[in-house]
Amino acid sequence: MNALTNETASFVAWRARSQQAVEQALSSWVLPGAPAGLGDAMRYAVLDGGKRLRPLLVLATSEALAGDAVAAMRAACSVELIHAYSLVHDDLPCMDNDVLRRGKPTVHVKFGEAQALLAGDALQALAFELLVPEDGSVAPVMAVPLCRLLALSAGADGMAGGQAVDLASVGQTLDLPALEAMHRRKTGALLQASVMMGAATSETSPQVATQLQRFGACLGLAFQVVDDILDVTADSAQLGKTAGKDAASDKPTFVSLMGLESAQQYADRALEEAHDALSQSGLVHCDVLHSLADWVGRRDC
Amino acid sequence: MNALTNETASFVAWRARSQQAVEQALSSWVLPGAPAGLGDAMRYAVLDGGKRLRPLLVLATSEALAGDAVAAMRAACSVELIHAYSLVHDDLPCMDNDVLRRGKPTVHVKFGEAQALLAGDALQALAFELLVPEDGSVAPVMAVPLCRLLALSAGADGMAGGQAVDLASVGQTLDLPALEAMHRRKTGALLQASVMMGAATSETSPQVATQLQRFGACLGLAFQVVDDILDVTADSAQLGKTAGKDAASDKPTFVSLMGLESAQQYADRALEEAHDALSQSGLVHCDVLHSLADWVGRRDC
Repeated sequence: MNALTNETASFVAWRARSQQAVEQALSSWVLPGAPAGLGDAMRYAVLDGGKRLRPLLVLATSEALAGDAVAAMRAACSVELIHAYSLVHDDLPCMDNDVLRRGKPTVHVKFGEAQALLAGDALQALAFELLVPEDGSVAPVMAVPLCRLLALSAGADGMAGGQAVDLASVGQTLDLPALEAMHRRKTGALLQASVMMGAATSETSPQVATQLQRFGACLGLAFQVVDDILDVTADSAQLGKTAGKDAASDKPTFVSLMGLESAQQYADRALEEAHDALSQSGLVHCDVLHSLADWVGRRDC
Repeated sequence: MNALTNETASFVAWRARSQQAVEQALSSWVLPGAPAGLGDAMRYAVLDGGKRLRPLLVLATSEALAGDAVAAMRAACSVELIHAYSLVHDDLPCMDNDVLRRGKPTVHVKFGEAQALLAGDALQALAFELLVPEDGSVAPVMAVPLCRLLALSAGADGMAGGQAVDLASVGQTLDLPALEAMHRRKTGALLQASVMMGAATSETSPQVATQLQRFGACLGLAFQVVDDILDVTADSAQLGKTAGKDAASDKPTFVSLMGLESAQQYADRALEEAHDALSQSGLVHCDVLHSLADWVGRRDC
């Protein structure tokens, strides 16, 4: 995911440092010891891959609000585990039946369908486990809203519901509001939750929370529109996953609905509104969030 | 699940009343509104079926300790949602490939594999959501240990891990310790968690907690041995699920390991130890827990 705009050196350094910290934390929490190869499948699904966008959103939001760093890292990893499990299940033959992810064979290709199913299930449980450590390092009054945000964004009104709509929409023509509603659930909910979980590691005023919610929503939309654009314009090597699969599976996308050029303008507008929400929030230390938004909205893979 | 021993009228009444309360609570929390038929699949997976053993264990333990009734009902339903999701995923073609559950077609037969996968995923998220209600009706200091118990029992060191071992053990000969270890994870962990989540709705002394943990472990073992016995001795109509499937799929069971008679004696000993743990706990109001143990250990379906 290379940004097409000028990135500041400090953002590039922050991103690399944070990605490495997330990788280390994930590696320490997703242990190989789980029985009968399950731990190996879980680690394969989670480690050494991905842009870690969701964890970065949690960390950047928490840092902008001077939030609790321990809770933020746990929240960052919990969101990534939900994302990782959703990819494992999404790639299964009964769903998208995909064989390539992050440039590697998908989990079920490597470990078998049953193990992939279980690895996804166990990753979801682990995501919640991370938020409620026995050592009390996440205060209960913080852990509870974090669990709530995660559960709501992952469940039937969030990601899982969005995937159900996605399945049902194959071969259908959706209008713009219906397409937006689907993606608000399918990818938007977890991206927005990443921002709000970052915010939940700190005391946040209702005004700031409202703008961060808007930021998360616009960022989620921009992310998805760009995803649809890249599915058409990029190749599989560039994406690390199968390109062109939306069109091949006859799924409605922003590009199929409005064409490539309008979709790009639409993504630009969503990105602009994300920046505006940050400006309206009045937060002083949100350079990294601005940069993350550009990274999402102007990425080429 | 009819007990073969004399049940007191008060236990039978308590059980019926509690099962009905659980059914109502589940129906109010698993809503049909989830998009694209997902809500229907979730309700089909959860409602109108099952003995509700796990919820009854939560409620009975909480009542024995004069625990918080609101938290207990949420905990009871959360455990049942985890159990229900595990059955949906377990029945999928890539796992046990079963078509009959609780006397009805399995979820994937009725709604398709993809929807069954998503319904299971969404039920797991909902299980955690129930424990962290926005209205604060479960105090954070109670919600956090409840979430932890649930996550640990459902995840790689609990149920999901046990299922991975189960998959890997097809066609293998396990010795008694290995078979026990598998079932301690696969079914035991969630049954024990049910008891301990009931306990977590109250202040519980370490001594009482230790005995309740032993009670849960022995009950879980008795449950599984009887399950293996019934798989051989009962028919599908009686069980509401496919009988004889362990033998058909060449899975190691307590019966295949030690024969029918020894398995029955083994179940009896586990049940006896469960009763002993309750007696050692010093709890005064645990008649219902004793009766639940008999109901599990002496059931004929």
